[in-house]
Amino acid sequence: MQDIVERLLNGDRRALARMVTLIENEIPQSRRFLAELHQHAGRAHIVGVTGAPGAGKSTLVTHVVREYRRRGHRVGVVAVDPSSPFTGGALLGDRIRMMELAGDPNVFIRSMASRGSLGGLSAATRDVVRAMDAAGYDPIIVETLGTGQAEVEVMRAAQSVLVVVAPGMGDEIQAIKAGIMEIADIFVVSKADKANANQTKAELAMLLSLDSSRRAHDQDAWRIPIVMTAAIKDQGIAELVDAIERHRAYLIESGALATRSERQVRSEVQSLILQAAVNALKAQVSEEEWQRLITDITTRECDPYSVANELERRIGLNP
Amino acid sequence: MQDIVERLLNGDRRALARMVTLIENEIPQSRRFLAELHQHAGRAHIVGVTGAPGAGKSTLVTHVVREYRRRGHRVGVVAVDPSSPFTGGALLGDRIRMMELAGDPNVFIRSMASRGSLGGLSAATRDVVRAMDAAGYDPIIVETLGTGQAEVEVMRAAQSVLVVVAPGMGDEIQAIKAGIMEIADIFVVSKADKANANQTKAELAMLLSLDSSRRAHDQDAWRIPIVMTAAIKDQGIAELVDAIERHRAYLIESGALATRSERQVRSEVQSLILQAAVNALKAQVSEEEWQRLITDITTRECDPYSVANELERRIGLNP
Repeated sequence: MQDIVERLLNGDRRALARMVTLIENEIPQSRRFLAELHQHAGRAHIVGVTGAPGAGKSTLVTHVVREYRRRGHRVGVVAVDPSSPFTGGALLGDRIRMMELAGDPNVFIRSMASRGSLGGLSAATRDVVRAMDAAGYDPIIVETLGTGQAEVEVMRAAQSVLVVVAPGMGDEIQAIKAGIMEIADIFVVSKADKANANQTKAELAMLLSLDSSRRAHDQDAWRIPIVMTAAIKDQGIAELVDAIERHRAYLIESGALATRSERQVRSEVQSLILQAAVNALKAQVSEEEWQRLITDITTRECDPYSVANELERRIGLNP
Repeated sequence: MQDIVERLLNGDRRALARMVTLIENEIPQSRRFLAELHQHAGRAHIVGVTGAPGAGKSTLVTHVVREYRRRGHRVGVVAVDPSSPFTGGALLGDRIRMMELAGDPNVFIRSMASRGSLGGLSAATRDVVRAMDAAGYDPIIVETLGTGQAEVEVMRAAQSVLVVVAPGMGDEIQAIKAGIMEIADIFVVSKADKANANQTKAELAMLLSLDSSRRAHDQDAWRIPIVMTAAIKDQGIAELVDAIERHRAYLIESGALATRSERQVRSEVQSLILQAAVNALKAQVSEEEWQRLITDITTRECDPYSVANELERRIGLNP
């Protein structure tokens, strides 16, 4: 079992696939393996790709992977789906198209779906990226389904975040204002062969010029580019990969990569600790007891503060 | 100091104002007071009002409060602003307009701004609602600034959630799809004297008919109404208050109120415990030590899992 780490480090795809499964199933032993893998990770550039459903992200990712392959890279792809009843079907189709890449031994693709908490999905994504990184894949592309809070969380683990907008999706631009804007490093106008693509580009440029939230940000000096792509015609893809590589160089030279990594590591450690608290609660308090406690609070026989205090004591937090 | 609880329960506004300040400043003693207040709370109906900036929420709330006053209610209002550089100015204006109500001794209004974490704001809002509830205000209206994740979190503590949409704000309808939909109990089309208000109503009706996410929800039997209001003409306000009261009656009769309260209480207890873990970490680990640990992880001298384990041990979680 131990040699899964060695085999993974030697580039064995089956060992990597096995590790991803261990992570997804939250096998406790995976932590020990991941701790070892951490020593060998940190070389890959992590590229996040987000945008509303229908923006053309999967097609774009497929073409970006091909361009990286042309440049001699081994590429990892993690497709993250916070589960949603609305878009599951469409998504599956996208993923099948992307699987065309899977015949290439230098491309490693895994889909991850949310089965539990949002925090759990972010943590699992981070761990899968770590495993791919240790296995020598670089870059690793993390693609999310939409632009909600779950997606923003997942994107926080990326180093270069691409926000993809299709022409005429004014709603998306609104969504960008709402939260994605703060994490975007590169804007991509997909389907740029459409007539209204230039208008979308102009709207994005306007949005960028108005944006004040970035001023306090770690990348004042990075001017967010807007790259026009038409993936099915393979237009703009080389330019997009150039932009990603420029952003990567910028992050290293400016020191922003170190700042960003430190923030990510701190957030990871804190999440691990909070997850441990949640697990301790699960181990200490049965569903039956929860029900009884909740009823006592709603009937005002006791109050939430005292119950929390008592449970904190039981999991060791409040000795 | 103890008599603040007694005075508050007797309806003393200054005692309530004092309590809110204790909550906002996270004075540890406030917990003890809140535990007592909890016994006397639980009578108020908690109405959440959310919607994109510009939807006309504050004007609507002002008129809803007046209507409740006409019906003889004492009304509490909590205006929650997850801090945002974009809208601070506009918001202030809205709040000043709302303050016209503040001359009424049977209306209690407080604004709350995010100064720390999202979790902190939700918890403080919940505690302020509890204090107003114990002081005999009913209903208590919780208004948020926008429709982001912070707002959704705050809305989870409400019993009837109003989502306000202004005519022609197609972008908002998109935002509704993204997450607000799941928590809406009543839709309000504000500024219904505008020409395109009926179109907006039709769009919302379409959205509701398509929505499948509610099927697994606790309120299958509640058909979300769409209420048209023109607050400045005082049109539709009585109908809206009627709809809120119908929803309140529905929640009680169907048993959904109990289910909802239980879910809210459980979430509150869990949040309190996680907050205690965060506080324990703050007390145990200095900023200097954090920096050292983070650097050790980023330079691969140690790994996040081992660091988390060690810190869990130090705060008592992992003995």
